[in-house]
Amino acid sequence: SGACTAGCCGLTEFVGTAIGHTIGLVIANVDHQIHEKMDIDAKYRSIGIVGGRTGAGPQIFAADEAVKATNSDILKIELPRDTEGGAGHGSLIIFGAEDVSDVRRAVEVCLKDLDRTFGDVYGNAAGHLEFQYTARASYALNKAFGAPIGKSFGITVGAPAAIGVVLADTAVKAATVDVVGYASPANGGTSYSNEVILQFSGDSGAVKQAIIAARDVGMQLLGTLDDGPLNSTTTPYII
Amino acid sequence: SGACTAGCCGLTEFVGTAIGHTIGLVIANVDHQIHEKMDIDAKYRSIGIVGGRTGAGPQIFAADEAVKATNSDILKIELPRDTEGGAGHGSLIIFGAEDVSDVRRAVEVCLKDLDRTFGDVYGNAAGHLEFQYTARASYALNKAFGAPIGKSFGITVGAPAAIGVVLADTAVKAATVDVVGYASPANGGTSYSNEVILQFSGDSGAVKQAIIAARDVGMQLLGTLDDGPLNSTTTPYII
Amino acid sequence: SGACTAGCCGLTEFVGTAIGHTIGLVIANVDHQIHEKMDIDAKYRSIGIVGGRTGAGPQIFAADEAVKATNSDILKIELPRDTEGGAGHGSLIIFGAEDVSDVRRAVEVCLKDLDRTFGDVYGNAAGHLEFQYTARASYALNKAFGAPIGKSFGITVGAPAAIGVVLADTAVKAATVDVVGYASPANGGTSYSNEVILQFSGDSGAVKQAIIAARDVGMQLLGTLDDGPLNSTTTPYII
Repeated sequence: SGACTAGCCGLTEFVGTAIGHTIGLVIANVDHQIHEKMDIDAKYRSIGIVGGRTGAGPQIFAADEAVKATNSDILKIELPRDTEGGAGHGSLIIFGAEDVSDVRRAVEVCLKDLDRTFGDVYGNAAGHLEFQYTARASYALNKAFGAPIGKSFGITVGAPAAIGVVLADTAVKAATVDVVGYASPANGGTSYSNEVILQFSGDSGAVKQAIIAARDVGMQLLGTLDDGPLNSTTTPYII
Repeated sequence: SGACTAGCCGLTEFVGTAIGHTIGLVIANVDHQIHEKMDIDAKYRSIGIVGGRTGAGPQIFAADEAVKATNSDILKIELPRDTEGGAGHGSLIIFGAEDVSDVRRAVEVCLKDLDRTFGDVYGNAAGHLEFQYTARASYALNKAFGAPIGKSFGITVGAPAAIGVVLADTAVKAATVDVVGYASPANGGTSYSNEVILQFSGDSGAVKQAIIAARDVGMQLLGTLDDGPLNSTTTPYII
Repeated sequence: SGACTAGCCGLTEFVGTAIGHTIGLVIANVDHQIHEKMDIDAKYRSIGIVGGRTGAGPQIFAADEAVKATNSDILKIELPRDTEGGAGHGSLIIFGAEDVSDVRRAVEVCLKDLDRTFGDVYGNAAGHLEFQYTARASYALNKAFGAPIGKSFGITVGAPAAIGVVLADTAVKAATVDVVGYASPANGGTSYSNEVILQFSGDSGAVKQAIIAARDVGMQLLGTLDDGPLNSTTTPYII
C-alpha cells in the first residue's frame, strides 16, 4: 500500500485534511449495501465525507458554502460528542452527487473554508465560545439547524452550557432576530455536549449585532473560569 | 466592555465561580423568545444558572440546599457528558423566581455549598467515586433523582461503571434502604457516562451506613486500577 | 478494610484488571432490589461484571469467547461514551449464572483474552482504528451487534467517523460479506462516539479479507491526520 504522511495520501478516496483533526474523503461509487445501511438514496452514486474530532459549527457553516458553490447535496449531518476531552462536538457531514468530481469539489471547498469558520472559536482550559454568521443560509444550515433558506443566519455557542444560556439571552436582546432553535445538553439539540447553542435568523445587520453583543459577554464570562488567554483559533471573521 | 479576570467580573449577570469549572449566573428578565425555547413558565421572570464542566451530583445536592434556603424553584437539571475527558457528567441547573434577588441568592448558596459537596468525590487516573447524603431531600433531588421530599437520601457513584455496580449492591446489603433509581451508561439514567449511580432513601442512619460501606469498597476497587493516591477533592463530609 | 493495590485486591468481588482500565468483578448473590432495578431475571443469582474506560469491541469479542468457554449467559452490554478523551466507547458487560464460580470463570476468560482483542486497535493523537474477527460468533456478539450465531463475523471501526465510512465501503468491496449493521455517531448504533462501525458476517476467509483490506486503508488515512506512530496496542491477531 502507498505511504501516506500527515496531510498527504495517494489513495483516490483522500481529498485533504484541515484544522480540528478534520479529514475530507470521497467514495466514487458507494457499495449498494453501504448505501442501504447509511439510508442514502441510491441516486447519489458518489459521496463526499467531511469529519473532524473538534468542531461542528465550523464544518457545518463551511459545508453550507460548499453546497452553494457546487453541484452537490447535503445528505447527512451528525454530531458526535467529542472535541478530544473538550465540552463540544465533532462532526460527520456527507455530501452526495451523481458524479464524484462534484462531491470532491464540495469537500475541497468545505475544507478550505474551515480556516475562516474557526475564526470565531475561542477556547481556554475551562471551555469554549463559538460564533458563526452567514449572509444567506443554504441547505447545510437548513438541515443542521432549521435555518430558513436564503436568509441571514447566526449561532452563538457557550461552554460550559451555563455561559451559553446568557449568550442566548444577550443575543436576542441586542437586536431583532427570530430564534430558530435553542439546543441544550439534554434537550435533544446537542449530543449531550456541555453547550447551549442559539440559532437565529433576521436582517443581516441584526444577526451580526446579536452575535457581536453575545461574543463580548462570552469573552468576559469564560474569562472568569480561567486566567489563560482566550484567543481566536485562527482570525475572527465576524466584524 | 469591562474587564473580567478569573473568579471576578463586573457584568450584572455574573454571580461567581467555584470548583469543577463551575460558574453561577443570573438573568433578571429573561427574553420572551428564550423563555419559550427553554420551555420555562413565563411567571419565572428571573432565572439563576449554575453549570460546570465537572460534577453533577455535587451541584445537584448543593442546589437542593439552595432551594431549601431561598425563595426559588428548580426549573431544569441537565447532565452533559463531560468531566473534561473523565468518565462522568457536567451540569446545567436552572433556578426560577419572580425576583432576581431570589435566584441570585439561590446561585450564591449553591456555589458556596460546592466545597462541601465535592468532599466525597475521589478520583485517580482510572476513574472516580462519588457519595452524597442529605438528611432531608428537597425539590432539586426530587427532580434529578426522584428522591422522596423530606426523607433522607443518598447516592453512590462508581466509574468505570463496573465498579458502580458493586457499590450499588454493597450499599443495599449494608443497611435497610429503598432503592429509588439505578442509572447505568445506557439505561437512560445517565447521558452515556461511564458510571453506575444508585439512588436510595431511608432512615438517616441507614442511608449513611449504606454509603459508608460502599465508599469503603469503592476505594479498594478503584485503587486496583491505578497506583496513584485516591484523595477527597476537598474534605469528606459523610461521617 | 483490606488494602488493595494496583491489579490486586482481597475483596471477594474482585477478579482482576486488564488493559484499557478494565476491571473484572463478581457478585455471588445479587440483592433483589438491584436485580429488579438492573432488569435482570432473578434466576441469575450471580453476576460477573467486566467494564473499562477504553474499548468496547475488545471487551465484547473477549466476552464472546467467555460465553463459549463457560456456563454463563450474557445479560447486558452497554457502551458508555468514553475512552478518556478519545473518540470511542468504554464498556459495561454483565454475565449471569446460577453459580458464582461460573461467572467468575467467564470474567477470568474475558479479562485474559483482552490482550489478544486489543491487538488490532491502533491509535494516534488524531483518532483510532479497530478491527475484530471471530471464526464463530456466539451470544455476546449476537447481543451487541446482531451477529448470526455460529458464523464468521467481523467489525471495522474508524475514528474520526469520516474514516470509518471509507473503511466500511472498502471492506464490503474487498470480499463477499453480509452487512449486519452500520453504526454512526448519531444513528443509534453508537453512544454518540466519533466512530463509524461496520458489522458483517460471511465465510471465514471473506470476513478476514474484508478486514485486512479495510485495515490497510485505515492505516493510511488516519496517518494523514497525525505524524505520530500508528502501532498496535498489543500484537495484531488478524493475519
